[in-house]
Amino acid sequence: MIRYDLALIGFGGVNRALAELIAERGDGLAAELGFALRVVAITDLRAGSLVRTEGAGIDLAPLLATAPGELDFSGLDGGSPEPRNEWVIRDVPADIVAEATFTNPVDGEPALSHVRWALEAGKSVCTTNKGPVALAGRALKRLAAERGAAFEFEGAVLSGTPVLRTAERMFDGLRISGVEGIMNGTSNYILGRLEAGLGLADAVREAQLLGYAEADPTADIEGHDVRLKVMIMANEVLGADLRQEDVSCEGITAIGARDIEEAAAAGLRWKLVGSAVRRPDGTVAARVAPAALPADHPLAGISGATNAVAFHTDLLGTVTVSGPGAGRTETAYALLSDIIAIHRRHLTGAETAPVRRTREETVRG
Amino acid sequence: MIRYDLALIGFGGVNRALAELIAERGDGLAAELGFALRVVAITDLRAGSLVRTEGAGIDLAPLLATAPGELDFSGLDGGSPEPRNEWVIRDVPADIVAEATFTNPVDGEPALSHVRWALEAGKSVCTTNKGPVALAGRALKRLAAERGAAFEFEGAVLSGTPVLRTAERMFDGLRISGVEGIMNGTSNYILGRLEAGLGLADAVREAQLLGYAEADPTADIEGHDVRLKVMIMANEVLGADLRQEDVSCEGITAIGARDIEEAAAAGLRWKLVGSAVRRPDGTVAARVAPAALPADHPLAGISGATNAVAFHTDLLGTVTVSGPGAGRTETAYALLSDIIAIHRRHLTGAETAPVRRTREETVRG
Repeated sequence: MIRYDLALIGFGGVNRALAELIAERGDGLAAELGFALRVVAITDLRAGSLVRTEGAGIDLAPLLATAPGELDFSGLDGGSPEPRNEWVIRDVPADIVAEATFTNPVDGEPALSHVRWALEAGKSVCTTNKGPVALAGRALKRLAAERGAAFEFEGAVLSGTPVLRTAERMFDGLRISGVEGIMNGTSNYILGRLEAGLGLADAVREAQLLGYAEADPTADIEGHDVRLKVMIMANEVLGADLRQEDVSCEGITAIGARDIEEAAAAGLRWKLVGSAVRRPDGTVAARVAPAALPADHPLAGISGATNAVAFHTDLLGTVTVSGPGAGRTETAYALLSDIIAIHRRHLTGAETAPVRRTREETVRG
Repeated sequence: MIRYDLALIGFGGVNRALAELIAERGDGLAAELGFALRVVAITDLRAGSLVRTEGAGIDLAPLLATAPGELDFSGLDGGSPEPRNEWVIRDVPADIVAEATFTNPVDGEPALSHVRWALEAGKSVCTTNKGPVALAGRALKRLAAERGAAFEFEGAVLSGTPVLRTAERMFDGLRISGVEGIMNGTSNYILGRLEAGLGLADAVREAQLLGYAEADPTADIEGHDVRLKVMIMANEVLGADLRQEDVSCEGITAIGARDIEEAAAAGLRWKLVGSAVRRPDGTVAARVAPAALPADHPLAGISGATNAVAFHTDLLGTVTVSGPGAGRTETAYALLSDIIAIHRRHLTGAETAPVRRTREETVRG
């Protein structure tokens, strides 16, 4: 059986959930999917780095039995107190780098460098970070193609809900004229609470208590998070090459109680909509803005922390995919679905992803 | 370039729309998809049959320029006043049979025989008819595998909206515990009109005027249409082997004005839901019944003639796909998506679908 060696970059909620899947279901998944997974390296800002490329690789069970805040790799065989991300990504032999650290919205770092280092080393990458995809997707895909590696990022939009892959695989022969989505669960939850009569500050506080909103909710409620996702949808689905300044962005903070009341009276619901539409001249217009949607709009019924993307097509009209937009297991599944996609391409010899090393082919050095 | 020769069985709205796609977009689709399509046979209950296996095959333009009711193949070169379905399906050399006649809910005929004849002859089949899939899907898939042919039927549920193919391709590694859907646009439209205050008889009449409902609306409003689709979802997605008598079925005719009012007062919406759920013992329970859904249920916001299927999974929670459930072009796209799937399997040499004949390989006899 083919086996892929994984390096997990970042060991917070998402990669920890991926490690749980591998530890708890690895054998079943191998039987179902036709490949085995072995974790050979883990790095984490707080825990340090851990590398074990011999035998069964890293024994995940004791790591998963330790509370996240108490993990310390430094005393372990192959461990170090430093994350040593660049060294691990570039030099530790692995087939796939699972990147799940964090990204800032200005330059995509540190996730962007992690992805680039891996691709430069000819390793395939899956990431859940939107920054590298939104800000440098085209360059990274070119790099991946040059180095014969795969670059997969389903989790960058709507966690594991298959949105990018639906666009890629389910609409052959269709022309997609536009996409629009509810791509931020926090703001969608808050809008629902505004409809229920809460003020913005109370709704934000409630979302923070529930773990939906960060201590600083700006990226969610001002639309910055959605803007990056709109860029990804525009560039990946509509073939655009947009930068942040090309996407106008308005959040939900200007929506007042009166707006909510008037919309409800008219049978409308406020939603924070990210959209990208192909103009008649072929270019793509993209924006983030609140919209009061009629009840029969495909996004009007998307409630709470659920997300959705509607694809507008010529032959098929509008097809909408909705599902979770966040969650550690849901996002870890995005990484698993990326690994499966890398495997598929490896099997079929498709253009982007001849994974270079398998058990049989590996030359470690 | 690979070319597939098509036999169109039934030349009503759907296969006529497929012929329009081929006539109007064939070259563009060939460039995009990597294969060409040539129609070599058409049969129709009223127009008769038309066979032309030489040169460019059947010239579609004059047929498409003739009003559907006035088509008569008998005077054309290669034409006959009789449909001659069995002869065309079995004996005219073709790679793919596009079956879009009709099906009765008791034994799936005549569509079932059409599919069986084609598979027996080693030809791949795509069909938009739910009868053969619901009533004999397992046997037909076995037959297809034995004969090295493909059997594709995305259009049997939700027209071209990719529901069966989403289940097949997007959820690898997940365990699907159940599916539930709004799979009949007519009854969903009628329920919306009941919510708007109409009585059942008026709502049905309106649906008939709009072309949503048949002259005899029984199959739509009594749930029989949904029952067949539930069987397909249960059998295809959950691996069950249900027969019609295994699926309890209740339509929307017992929902009265008071039910609608009480639901609205409680923030609920009545929907005709078809569902299939895996029981703890591994078997599958399936039913069709009206349900008053809370606003945050993924099916509650599905309005008008739109259809949707929600997949309940372990790692990813609920993922819902919504889109058109009917329409001639939308259903023709289902056939095109089936042909694309047949092509993909042909390319990758996958288990079920080595299409036997291509331009290069064809031995006509």
